[in-house]
Amino acid sequence: MNREQLINEIKKKNSFLCIGLDSDKSKIPKHLLKYKDPVFEFNRQIIEATQDLCVAIKPNLAFYEAGGSTGWKSLEKTLKIIPKGIFTIADAKRGDIGNTSGLYAKAFFETLNFDAITVAPYMGSDSVIPFLKFKDKWVILLALTSNAGANDFQMGKHKMENGKWLFQNVLEISKHWGTVENMMYVVGATQASALKEIRKIIPNNFLLIPGVGAQGGSLEEVCKYGMKKECGLLVNSSRSIIYAGDGKDFAEKARVEAKKLQIEMAGMIKMKMGIKW
Amino acid sequence: MNREQLINEIKKKNSFLCIGLDSDKSKIPKHLLKYKDPVFEFNRQIIEATQDLCVAIKPNLAFYEAGGSTGWKSLEKTLKIIPKGIFTIADAKRGDIGNTSGLYAKAFFETLNFDAITVAPYMGSDSVIPFLKFKDKWVILLALTSNAGANDFQMGKHKMENGKWLFQNVLEISKHWGTVENMMYVVGATQASALKEIRKIIPNNFLLIPGVGAQGGSLEEVCKYGMKKECGLLVNSSRSIIYAGDGKDFAEKARVEAKKLQIEMAGMIKMKMGIKW
Repeated sequence: MNREQLINEIKKKNSFLCIGLDSDKSKIPKHLLKYKDPVFEFNRQIIEATQDLCVAIKPNLAFYEAGGSTGWKSLEKTLKIIPKGIFTIADAKRGDIGNTSGLYAKAFFETLNFDAITVAPYMGSDSVIPFLKFKDKWVILLALTSNAGANDFQMGKHKMENGKWLFQNVLEISKHWGTVENMMYVVGATQASALKEIRKIIPNNFLLIPGVGAQGGSLEEVCKYGMKKECGLLVNSSRSIIYAGDGKDFAEKARVEAKKLQIEMAGMIKMKMGIKW
Repeated sequence: MNREQLINEIKKKNSFLCIGLDSDKSKIPKHLLKYKDPVFEFNRQIIEATQDLCVAIKPNLAFYEAGGSTGWKSLEKTLKIIPKGIFTIADAKRGDIGNTSGLYAKAFFETLNFDAITVAPYMGSDSVIPFLKFKDKWVILLALTSNAGANDFQMGKHKMENGKWLFQNVLEISKHWGTVENMMYVVGATQASALKEIRKIIPNNFLLIPGVGAQGGSLEEVCKYGMKKECGLLVNSSRSIIYAGDGKDFAEKARVEAKKLQIEMAGMIKMKMGIKW
């Protein structure tokens, strides 16, 4: 999916919601365990119940790899039923030397046919650029993450000698590797106060914002500092949507939570962007 | 496998060789394609031919994920036939927020039963510590990698304001997360000149050294600056061993290359450590 198509989907649905399919076999409703592939059935019902409310779906690979090749099979089946028009993100945080990153790109963009993958920046340009060689596919580079460990290196004890945090240098250097048409950045919702500075470095790249919901980030803060004319945000919620219920009506309950966020987002779009689509 | 057991294997085999199973279906000998699982058959023959010469085996996940769930199946089968006594490393370069890293740990330490996993440090302490909670399992944290992109952030344009490179800060901060019994570090063989400084920060942790062979690193340099009383090194070679031949005798040719490195290593052990085991 290209940038224009993504923006059109956001307009059409009045939403920039990304739903994180962190589907853990030990946490899904018990009645699903009778299915041959409980994780797939869980995902299927969540997708069916929320597809008109979200513009992106983001499975985190850890939850599938925990099941080994069986987990990967559930993921492959899930990808096949995600409706066209929904932007698919492999939250995989990969990155390796050049030829190896090229194989990861093949795995996620060709074998699994994701639109985007999250990538870790530590290994530098040649670990990221192989992902940027696929048409209408996206790198979502980790910049400033939502967890406490972001204070170890990203915005840690020491700044860089140019007076900037590591995450600022990551943004400034990496923005030249791609364009606003194939690079997004991860910025945690718990880091909303940093968004103003981040927008000075990368005014137009889309940001993937996790951490709203269970992790405590505020949607309003995120929009205040991060939203742009063409929206420029994908805000993710995982646990607070997918585990909203644990009975037979879990998918309806997930819909209720997704709808709450979508309505809030529609309000932000109207208020902050000053437009009525 | 614990540290003592690993050191005993190094002594017994007079080798600190790690063989990287970067097994790419498009590069393995053509006659193997008639097998139901060509990648597994390739790995099986390589392992059989080299198991007395190496102390560690390191599949890089990208090569398996490129095949999707089928690739993961080949990896699972491979893990099951690696002989006891060989230290197994998942070269996966994972790392995510705490509960998610915990699931990656489960995937690699329990589902696949690896001894160790490579982890990227960018997300900080809570992305690494969940991996350290498993008995006799290891984190191998990326410190200074062998690729050109290491010059973007790890040892890049800017030092940190404390006068150190990012990779030095990563070593100094992260060494307190674990112990020499559960943490190793990745240092590229192409970075041998930095090993002297690295050994001042982490004198006793084992180092996993990729980049000897196809990437051009020198074993002698690595040993000169990195080797310690209890060896402290695992030196990896992937392509120059596993793709030494492309005919029916590919495994014998791989053995010849592995043997050359093992003999060189035995010499280093004798010369640099001043001992005859």
